[in-house]
Amino acid sequence: FNPVFADLPETVFETMSGLARKLGAINLGQGFPDGQGPDDVRAAAARALDTVSNQYPSMMGLPSLRTAIAAHYRHHQGLDLDPEREVMVTSGATEALAGALLALVRPGDEVVLFEPMYDAYLPLVRQAGGVPRFVTLKPPHFGLDEAALAEAFTERTRVVVLNNPLNPSATVFSEADLALLAEFCCRFDAVAVCDEVWEHLVFDGRRHVPLMRLPGMRERTVKIGSAGKIFSLTGWKIGFVMAAEPLMRGLSRAHQFLTFTTPPNLQEGVAYGLGKDDAYFEEMRAGFARSRDRLSAGLTRLGFTVLPSAGTYFLSIDIGDGPEGDRAFCERMVRQHGVAAIPISAFYAEGAVRNLVRLCFAKTDATLDAALERLSGMP
Amino acid sequence: FNPVFADLPETVFETMSGLARKLGAINLGQGFPDGQGPDDVRAAAARALDTVSNQYPSMMGLPSLRTAIAAHYRHHQGLDLDPEREVMVTSGATEALAGALLALVRPGDEVVLFEPMYDAYLPLVRQAGGVPRFVTLKPPHFGLDEAALAEAFTERTRVVVLNNPLNPSATVFSEADLALLAEFCCRFDAVAVCDEVWEHLVFDGRRHVPLMRLPGMRERTVKIGSAGKIFSLTGWKIGFVMAAEPLMRGLSRAHQFLTFTTPPNLQEGVAYGLGKDDAYFEEMRAGFARSRDRLSAGLTRLGFTVLPSAGTYFLSIDIGDGPEGDRAFCERMVRQHGVAAIPISAFYAEGAVRNLVRLCFAKTDATLDAALERLSGMP
Ligand SMILES: CSCCC(=O)C(=O)O
Ligand SMILES: CSCCC(=O)C(=O)O
Repeated sequence: FNPVFADLPETVFETMSGLARKLGAINLGQGFPDGQGPDDVRAAAARALDTVSNQYPSMMGLPSLRTAIAAHYRHHQGLDLDPEREVMVTSGATEALAGALLALVRPGDEVVLFEPMYDAYLPLVRQAGGVPRFVTLKPPHFGLDEAALAEAFTERTRVVVLNNPLNPSATVFSEADLALLAEFCCRFDAVAVCDEVWEHLVFDGRRHVPLMRLPGMRERTVKIGSAGKIFSLTGWKIGFVMAAEPLMRGLSRAHQFLTFTTPPNLQEGVAYGLGKDDAYFEEMRAGFARSRDRLSAGLTRLGFTVLPSAGTYFLSIDIGDGPEGDRAFCERMVRQHGVAAIPISAFYAEGAVRNLVRLCFAKTDATLDAALERLSGMP
Repeated sequence: FNPVFADLPETVFETMSGLARKLGAINLGQGFPDGQGPDDVRAAAARALDTVSNQYPSMMGLPSLRTAIAAHYRHHQGLDLDPEREVMVTSGATEALAGALLALVRPGDEVVLFEPMYDAYLPLVRQAGGVPRFVTLKPPHFGLDEAALAEAFTERTRVVVLNNPLNPSATVFSEADLALLAEFCCRFDAVAVCDEVWEHLVFDGRRHVPLMRLPGMRERTVKIGSAGKIFSLTGWKIGFVMAAEPLMRGLSRAHQFLTFTTPPNLQEGVAYGLGKDDAYFEEMRAGFARSRDRLSAGLTRLGFTVLPSAGTYFLSIDIGDGPEGDRAFCERMVRQHGVAAIPISAFYAEGAVRNLVRLCFAKTDATLDAALERLSGMP
């Protein structure tokens, strides 16, 4: 086997979900909401099984969806994208990320990665022959600092991968952080691959700022979005890629040999959903923020130390620097208390933090309350 | 850009389909059927949008679909697969192929490829760092011969990619060919990646023999299937991977970072469809064979030289060894006569045949008759 992939363990999200199923635990590990997403979006996808062709759509995605994506991001984020040339549909954000890294990174190119990081980034960089340069972000703010960037960026930097909002820390990069990163990208002629799948899930009046909007970044950003995350339909696996045409041409070449196309009826359902009004998105955010507050308050009441969450589906608890560590804590939590969570050390290649455990709050009140009930004896 | 992907042109299937759309041509290029597949399979997928979870399914695929895949291949091909450990669902056969090649091939490994070959094989082998060793199959039989295999296989052979039935030649490898290949795989300890997406589309009483059934091959074969091809729903992008557990473990590691999972409602629709009775598959085959005969007879009547087609959605015409060549012929055919087809030289990296043009007959009688009408002035 190629050791890049084969030497890896099964992803922690799958392992914890499997364990939760096996043990009958409440699954606050892998990030997916309770429920079935919006009824009207599902109904649009069901109708489209009869009304649009079920044969190969265009490799770049259905024109209706690409148009809807461009309109959506114009309205919500002020982006000006040509739906014909600057928008591509992929089979989920993971495929978008795989395609972007395989297309952009040549053997020996350096790729700046911020830790904690989603666990797909590093194997994909390695598969492309890239050389990772890690920047470790420090709790509780997980912000950027100039000295660390200056050490990471070199003449060989080709790509930097940014996840904003950041999973698992549930933090949002400040505009100053984004400006600093943009400056480094421009100075070192690097492309930013921006995993912004949590862009709609920012709370307490915050607004997501896409890195692509910063000075100099329009032509050097690959922005990745996720319909699964936007509509609480994580199984649909519809991703979006947005990039200036010269970048997009290369990205589409990788896409055509990774999955080639994406199911048309689900694309049509998403095209419908992206046109929902502002109230829909505000209410969705408010609903998730309420769930966050419910879980946070409940955990605090039980004696856990809860970190703030500015975005994503997640919050973390600080389990302290005792000898147990986050992995053993999660093992104990799922096996003895029947609640699955994710140890944050899984998001590090080196220098892992071992005192943080991530919980998903994107659940019904009943699920959260039941989990809290189970955890009452734990801390 | 990484030149492996970026230096490639857009895939010929997409280009010809785009041209057909633009010119209003009848599209006999890219391989997809007219129509919407079986109503009951689409209805099952529509229902499943409400009855199964729309969140991330298991990374290996829904248990219902994996069970259905194992049962289907036991019934139709006598394979004995453990649905828990030897079956994986992917986002189309292309993803299955990408994952298999990226997982199995290490930099410097040799990969035996038979020409003509599907255009994704070579870039994926290159992306994995593999060294292609081409074996050119000769028209009209496109069979294997021992001398050519002896030249291609070496101590460094890691993988051989077999497409059976073979697109674009519409030929089926004989059992003697398969036995010969199996012998080489065993002798050189190579893994066979078998793209068998056309397995149900073999005509005139032929039966598909999976390479996996040959002596010594059970443990060294990665078999790839396609629900899109089985059910004439090419846009659904549900692929199957079947392999012994030690292989599967490595393959799943690549899958988890390429797409991770595949839409559950479509998986459920396919699980339903795979249980259809023998009569369904017989009638489907008979229908395609009738379409093949209709197109073949019509083209022959017009004066074209039509090659036999034993399987797939395709037949080829021999345009002779004149100076025009297959690409210019296809250009002329789509622009002046309004019918899109595929030049077979697109399936070669070296030593391309230039006298063959592929047409897709998986169309309604009305579509085929209209295409014949348009081609009446051409030969
Ligand atoms: C693709 S499974 C992981 C889902 C997710 O984003 C998370 O749990 O962090
Ligand atoms: C993935 S597009 C090509 C479909 C096909 O198998 C063909 O036309 O050969």
